[in-house]
Amino acid sequence: METNIEVRIATKNDLDCIVAMLADDVLGRKRERYEHPLPDSYLQAFEAITSDPNNELVVACLGNEVIGVQQITFTPYITHQGGWRATIEGVRTSASVRGQGIGTKLITWAIQRATQRGCHLIQLTTDKERPDALRFYERLGFQATHEGLKLRL
Amino acid sequence: METNIEVRIATKNDLDCIVAMLADDVLGRKRERYEHPLPDSYLQAFEAITSDPNNELVVACLGNEVIGVQQITFTPYITHQGGWRATIEGVRTSASVRGQGIGTKLITWAIQRATQRGCHLIQLTTDKERPDALRFYERLGFQATHEGLKLRL
Repeated sequence: METNIEVRIATKNDLDCIVAMLADDVLGRKRERYEHPLPDSYLQAFEAITSDPNNELVVACLGNEVIGVQQITFTPYITHQGGWRATIEGVRTSASVRGQGIGTKLITWAIQRATQRGCHLIQLTTDKERPDALRFYERLGFQATHEGLKLRL
Repeated sequence: METNIEVRIATKNDLDCIVAMLADDVLGRKRERYEHPLPDSYLQAFEAITSDPNNELVVACLGNEVIGVQQITFTPYITHQGGWRATIEGVRTSASVRGQGIGTKLITWAIQRATQRGCHLIQLTTDKERPDALRFYERLGFQATHEGLKLRL
């Protein structure tokens, strides 16, 4: 199956499937609102992401079906001699295709894209409630050298 | 002393002091190059940060002296119903003033700024080699709910 998977920048037509995937998740169902029409906040976020050259919303597709999503943010920092970093966030795959390499395909795409953009580092945080996700990222070469701290505002 | 500290957006004149602070650090000395003239990569990063409305380089000053620095990135995400987040990175205080509340002043400023910008969450990662930093952020209300993973490119 993997050979037929296309990874590409998301379009507005993908947004409904993306929100459905985010909501169909043990943590996501507590915090997303998958309704028709979609809450306007999702559309506003989509516009803000796609109009920013340092943000890319990326989907994995099988034919016309969106089966995975991630967002990549490219950030210039003064640290590391003024190096750019890529940050991956919001990685989800469709429940129907889990364990079939979609996540690997997405992250591999992100690593290649970050390299193309001249980033010296690619980073992400993963919820400690998702031990499988941690092992997945470690298999791809990521090292859990940092604590990821959050504060709700 | 704390009452005389000003926290503000950095200007190009601050860049030399910022790089000196980043280099004067147990982890920073391995990866920064504090030379005169400053390596051009620092200037390029400074321009990239200050020309991006979603990035702010922030300094703490005592009179004319720069004694602290941090960078805040504001990012729109599809997750959390299209919510914006603030990410803090590259927090350093001058060795001469450590333990005098400069870090607290910087992070408090970042939290206020993120609230002003409508962010629902403020986040950061801290190296597991800096246990004091972890306790510092936890005292300010941050929770280490996530693993922070990095991959060098």
